[in-house]
Amino acid sequence: MSRHRTTRQRGSSANMLMTASASAGDDHSDSAQDPLPSWNEGATKQAIIDFVADVTREDSPHFEPRDRRIAVFDNDGTLWVEQPMYAQMDFALEELRKVLPLHPEWRDRQPFKAAIEADFETLLKEGARNLQILVGALYAGTTPDQFDRLAAEWLAAAVHPRFERRYTELVYQPMREVMAYFRANGFKTFIVTGGGAEFVRAFAEQTYDAPPEEVIGSGIITRFESRDGRADLYRFADVDFVDEGPGKPVGIESHIGRRPIAAFGNSDGDLEMLEYTTGASGRRLGLIVRHTDAAREYAYDKGSPVGHLERALEGASSNGWIIADMRRDWRVIFPFDGA
Amino acid sequence: MSRHRTTRQRGSSANMLMTASASAGDDHSDSAQDPLPSWNEGATKQAIIDFVADVTREDSPHFEPRDRRIAVFDNDGTLWVEQPMYAQMDFALEELRKVLPLHPEWRDRQPFKAAIEADFETLLKEGARNLQILVGALYAGTTPDQFDRLAAEWLAAAVHPRFERRYTELVYQPMREVMAYFRANGFKTFIVTGGGAEFVRAFAEQTYDAPPEEVIGSGIITRFESRDGRADLYRFADVDFVDEGPGKPVGIESHIGRRPIAAFGNSDGDLEMLEYTTGASGRRLGLIVRHTDAAREYAYDKGSPVGHLERALEGASSNGWIIADMRRDWRVIFPFDGA
Repeated sequence: MSRHRTTRQRGSSANMLMTASASAGDDHSDSAQDPLPSWNEGATKQAIIDFVADVTREDSPHFEPRDRRIAVFDNDGTLWVEQPMYAQMDFALEELRKVLPLHPEWRDRQPFKAAIEADFETLLKEGARNLQILVGALYAGTTPDQFDRLAAEWLAAAVHPRFERRYTELVYQPMREVMAYFRANGFKTFIVTGGGAEFVRAFAEQTYDAPPEEVIGSGIITRFESRDGRADLYRFADVDFVDEGPGKPVGIESHIGRRPIAAFGNSDGDLEMLEYTTGASGRRLGLIVRHTDAAREYAYDKGSPVGHLERALEGASSNGWIIADMRRDWRVIFPFDGA
Repeated sequence: MSRHRTTRQRGSSANMLMTASASAGDDHSDSAQDPLPSWNEGATKQAIIDFVADVTREDSPHFEPRDRRIAVFDNDGTLWVEQPMYAQMDFALEELRKVLPLHPEWRDRQPFKAAIEADFETLLKEGARNLQILVGALYAGTTPDQFDRLAAEWLAAAVHPRFERRYTELVYQPMREVMAYFRANGFKTFIVTGGGAEFVRAFAEQTYDAPPEEVIGSGIITRFESRDGRADLYRFADVDFVDEGPGKPVGIESHIGRRPIAAFGNSDGDLEMLEYTTGASGRRLGLIVRHTDAAREYAYDKGSPVGHLERALEGASSNGWIIADMRRDWRVIFPFDGA
């Protein structure tokens, strides 16, 4: 089947992806400009550039037409900070503390109890599901439009405990450059997050130039119903889908309907997405962001319940996945570092 | 929140959307060329053109920025022929007849029994669900890639009983012009089908210039598993989601994450999608394709189990939905009519 070519042109907000001191290349992959100025020179940066050249040069044996150029990015820990806790967890815990007096029964019920006690080990034992259970219960009865406003308001006000900046400032500049670089080379990019799709959509367009339909995430049961004479969508308490681990390939197929050729993750929750992406024949890219920089960001892997990285790291060499070592490979971490 | 502008440029295959004798306008909504040459002059055509002008002219009080320009299209009966049975039903019944000797237990079990007996009344009593149950059972164990090939092969060979053409030739030229016209005016277009997303994706790119991620549809449970040492996605028998009736707004929110401002349907299965789209404040377009042309296509509404149209038609005037009367409004029906 011949598939058409789509060229996506991003507007003025694409400039937001650049640091003041660096531009991220133009639409030509053979540009003399450095498309990844926040990456240190070395094998990791070169592997990313080689991959893009290999799949986009028409004379390459690994050439992929534009409709096959799908790249998927995990969010927490891959595109922005996830320590000491996921932003969405901070969002949920703040609301939980607020409404707890109305729900005394939650004090002895999991996962509420673990959340109240900040027992992350218990809370995250089953990955992203418990966080979605919390968010489902806390925002049941809102419409998606209302939820979007509440999330956006919280994100505009909340401050990260260590960096004392808004979460949306704590995005990784090197990864924003990768997203812009891939898009400039004809890729469609999607965020594939274990977090709630509606939470991430509340900031993804402004922060990553990713419109809502390019965000795939966990979901809460939503129904279209008439209430008070007005038909609308309403959120229910129950979890519909957990977009994590083996759920990520499922979410990708359901949403995109095509197997990606490049995947970026940082934890065991991304293992199956990496396997799915690089498991097919052809030139494929799998990359794991490794948090090795306690001074500028955080250093953690298998010891951390947040962003637990163990099995995916063990599988990296046999699968040919690249490790982006934050301390070694990233010249700057955050956009404001370059200013 | 300021949202970025995205311009989508469609490639050479956009030409496929035009008849040989007519071009569908260019990127300027004020073009002197007729963007809808297959539509007869009249109130319906004018209402579509007025809507597009109203939401795209910067000096219009109803101006909508590009990121808000989302248009959704039902498929069966709105973009292509659905009589005497949905193409996907034809696809399933052919496979069912083939494998029935291996599944004698299906002869007395619904919905298989109704399908075997071509009892569409029973089969479609609960809308699209039974058809998905059939397709789920028939293709359990295949990967999405395998299913895509099987569907594409079937579509390349199957012939419509009355028109003796492939189903993909039996698309409505006037609606293809609407899709192209909306895209040329900065709209993102999505197909929102009660049919299986993976079935419709097998032809949507070639037929409608709609890549897989712009197709939202019913879904079968799919899991990422290792079988024979190979990890991949596999289809299971059970229905995951029915994208019909109140399911359509749910599918739209889950997939697009934004409320559309224009919706096109033809049956009661599109009622809630129309309500959701036009229920918000601002300039909105709801359009119902009415099958009134027994000579050139079919004439049916509330008497037909396929494409049953009753409640949506009753709600049209109070909701301001436009009726596209096929006999009156469409100069040609199929692309080959214009040749």
